[in-house]
Amino acid sequence: MERLKKALHYDRSTHPERTNATPERLFEILENVLGTKAQMHIQALTPLLGPPQMPVNDKQASQIVSYFDKANFDRNSLTRIIEQLEYSEISTAEAIALHHQFKIPVSHPEEDIIPVKGDGCWIMDTKGKWYLDMDSNYSATNLGMANEEIALGLYNQARTLISMKEDRIQIARTRFLKEIHSMMPEGLTQFYWQNSGGEAVDKALKIAKAFTGTTKVIAFKNGFHGRTHGAVAVTWNEKYRKPFGLHNSDWVQFAEFNNIDSVKQMLNKTGAKIIILEMVQGEEAGNRPAKQEFVDALWALAKEKGLVIIDDEVQAGFGRTAVKRGDWFACMSYGVVPDIMVIGKSFGGGYPVTAVVTKKEISEAMQYGYDGSTFGGNPMAMTAALIATRQMRERDITFNVVERSKQMMEGFKRLESTYPVVSDAHGRGLMVAFSLGNAENVSLVQKALTNNGIKASLSTGPYIRFLPPTIITEGETDYFLNKLEKAIASVL
Amino acid sequence: MERLKKALHYDRSTHPERTNATPERLFEILENVLGTKAQMHIQALTPLLGPPQMPVNDKQASQIVSYFDKANFDRNSLTRIIEQLEYSEISTAEAIALHHQFKIPVSHPEEDIIPVKGDGCWIMDTKGKWYLDMDSNYSATNLGMANEEIALGLYNQARTLISMKEDRIQIARTRFLKEIHSMMPEGLTQFYWQNSGGEAVDKALKIAKAFTGTTKVIAFKNGFHGRTHGAVAVTWNEKYRKPFGLHNSDWVQFAEFNNIDSVKQMLNKTGAKIIILEMVQGEEAGNRPAKQEFVDALWALAKEKGLVIIDDEVQAGFGRTAVKRGDWFACMSYGVVPDIMVIGKSFGGGYPVTAVVTKKEISEAMQYGYDGSTFGGNPMAMTAALIATRQMRERDITFNVVERSKQMMEGFKRLESTYPVVSDAHGRGLMVAFSLGNAENVSLVQKALTNNGIKASLSTGPYIRFLPPTIITEGETDYFLNKLEKAIASVL
Repeated sequence: MERLKKALHYDRSTHPERTNATPERLFEILENVLGTKAQMHIQALTPLLGPPQMPVNDKQASQIVSYFDKANFDRNSLTRIIEQLEYSEISTAEAIALHHQFKIPVSHPEEDIIPVKGDGCWIMDTKGKWYLDMDSNYSATNLGMANEEIALGLYNQARTLISMKEDRIQIARTRFLKEIHSMMPEGLTQFYWQNSGGEAVDKALKIAKAFTGTTKVIAFKNGFHGRTHGAVAVTWNEKYRKPFGLHNSDWVQFAEFNNIDSVKQMLNKTGAKIIILEMVQGEEAGNRPAKQEFVDALWALAKEKGLVIIDDEVQAGFGRTAVKRGDWFACMSYGVVPDIMVIGKSFGGGYPVTAVVTKKEISEAMQYGYDGSTFGGNPMAMTAALIATRQMRERDITFNVVERSKQMMEGFKRLESTYPVVSDAHGRGLMVAFSLGNAENVSLVQKALTNNGIKASLSTGPYIRFLPPTIITEGETDYFLNKLEKAIASVL
Repeated sequence: MERLKKALHYDRSTHPERTNATPERLFEILENVLGTKAQMHIQALTPLLGPPQMPVNDKQASQIVSYFDKANFDRNSLTRIIEQLEYSEISTAEAIALHHQFKIPVSHPEEDIIPVKGDGCWIMDTKGKWYLDMDSNYSATNLGMANEEIALGLYNQARTLISMKEDRIQIARTRFLKEIHSMMPEGLTQFYWQNSGGEAVDKALKIAKAFTGTTKVIAFKNGFHGRTHGAVAVTWNEKYRKPFGLHNSDWVQFAEFNNIDSVKQMLNKTGAKIIILEMVQGEEAGNRPAKQEFVDALWALAKEKGLVIIDDEVQAGFGRTAVKRGDWFACMSYGVVPDIMVIGKSFGGGYPVTAVVTKKEISEAMQYGYDGSTFGGNPMAMTAALIATRQMRERDITFNVVERSKQMMEGFKRLESTYPVVSDAHGRGLMVAFSLGNAENVSLVQKALTNNGIKASLSTGPYIRFLPPTIITEGETDYFLNKLEKAIASVL
């Protein structure tokens, strides 16, 4: 009952991140756990409490505890009620309403699952239902959404020194530098720390421009690199650029992906010295990997013409697209080293941290004052990154990705042979997809998956995409494939 | 001795953010604490240990403990040695060397103070010396650099759900939304969460462009807004733009700050509908506030011509520039409401979180798919922001800023009347500066301050700038003014 009291009326000295529970949330949880039997309790409790979304006060919390004490809930139900209240003291309805009330509507709000608690590859929502995560926040939470060691490291760092601007030397970054460079492709030794992927792409473009003394860039159709003025200018989908007058940038041209002739034509036309690409295109292309011969030809062309290649590995990096053990980056799996690489998302274990990584020669084009960052490479980001990347190595993530990728693709092939609607299974590592013929089918299957406790990835066009946490186990992969087949069979 | 052992050879289950100590660091600390008496201990310990920068192993750590046990250090020295080892197990020299080895040199590395531990307005460095912080990381750590409540909240959140993409509703953000909107200027009700100030400025420009259907922007001379392609294009200093070919952007013109005629001329020339400004210009202008009559004229002009004003309060906001109690933003102190406001730095209490805030009418120009963010408004950022802004209100930060600002300006006036080299003391709230005649004098005084345990802010030109934490006390302010006078007297 002590625990229930604290879940209703929070103890700031142990849970400063909380607020007090609302009656609406308490009643929602009673329904989650007790079903129709919740009604009698809700009716009994309502007169004791204030309006549905008014957080309970200390006295009301005590009255609820007193009611629970006499209500003889079974032990299992009581534990589930308290646990759900600990994870969220605010109702689903209120959370959705506040989101809409205060949001600049830049993106489609995802309301189907309101997550409250991560555990390995799993997420629990406000309804108390668990989902297997097959998205990893676009590859940002490859180690899952709750990690005790990262949490503890961040706590220790926040008590010690929570922030320090990018240009000041500090110890958390020093610790990480001692370890991270060993994971990088050979020759990529120089780092500039940022916070988001788009921001890091934007800075990579600046560095390439400073080094070449030119501004023209070749990007690729179906490529996605982020949302800042610089990053969105090299992003293909015109919908992302046109509302801001960024669709006619004179410095960007888009070539066909996996088509070296198209690149050559663009180079001849523009005289560009800078190329930016993803080795595995994500959302816009349905997880489409570059072909080995295209990569080889592109690198040969770059050598011949002295081009600077920027490899955006924000989504593909840190083992996500491993083809063999040790492939920490997609470029490693293709046997090439880019001039500039952009890394991000997963290496902070969920903490916002990204970076531009480049060769010594290119880094020297930058001079003091050319850029700067308040939060880039701050002590918390570096602490999270130290622990997350150490875990990736210890858990042999690239090996797991190779094994699970095989298992996943075999499953997709079985689906192809059983269901005519399934085709074109493809991908690299754990960045995989297949076609369901059209976007409507994708939507139907995604909804069926959600109902069956599988959280799919955002998809575009006929391709349904999956990016599970790179820690996904063999059993979880089988569980997913089984649910996936059931979902397809049930709706198509 | 148990504590010493753990500071040398870390216990991963309690300190996953650590590495093992190096002999070089141990010896540096012995010198920090014991001075010349350290040498005999260093000579005795050296044969037991490996190379200077090779972290000690378990056996070596035990040998050091055994040596310390017999060496009869006095209690006070022993405690200081262990404490310094707990804050950094890596030497100053190694930290500096690694910084240079792996860094893209975008900004001048600050090597004079390598901070390891914050406490209120104070910072300790690797030498064991404490400094009074008069910079707050450009206003990012207004509540100091270590905050127990924020640390605990982040720990709880990281164990529960460390990340969630911006478009998915989650509870930590819901909690913050219930509180934050009450601090905003009236009518600024819609939020879009980002990670860095530059990124948020970049997105504010996109939103203004989408709303007006135009791309031309008037920015101001000596303004600074960040480093992405969009943010740097509206930043005055050409050095920040030219190396990247961003100095001739056809969509940006710079008007004279505090000169309404200059703005009118630019508007007539370009037909621009968007204006971006800081109400108090920072680094580039030496903390220069807008004049009230300029602000009034600008807002009148905007009303007349239907302009959209973007107010960049990344540095000035959250009480930093308060003139009266309750001035959470500079615009409030001027009695105006901008169309779009950019907030950042301090409201995460050191966690990277920023936002674009705007009116309902303007927010409706954005549509689903127009933007998106992986880390924007993530659960950790929102938790840190909830706790930090709650502390700001409880600690009556705006009142403290008003009082300390008066105290500071009185001190500066006394200096003006005593030292002819001091002139033009100015500022707003705790964003203050005065002239020392030229940049050389500023540099001399800054160095003298550092030697006297005061960490000054980065300054440009003849102005020496100060942005202390907004929690600075009366006694600390006096301490600073006293040291400041001594520094000026000693070098000028």
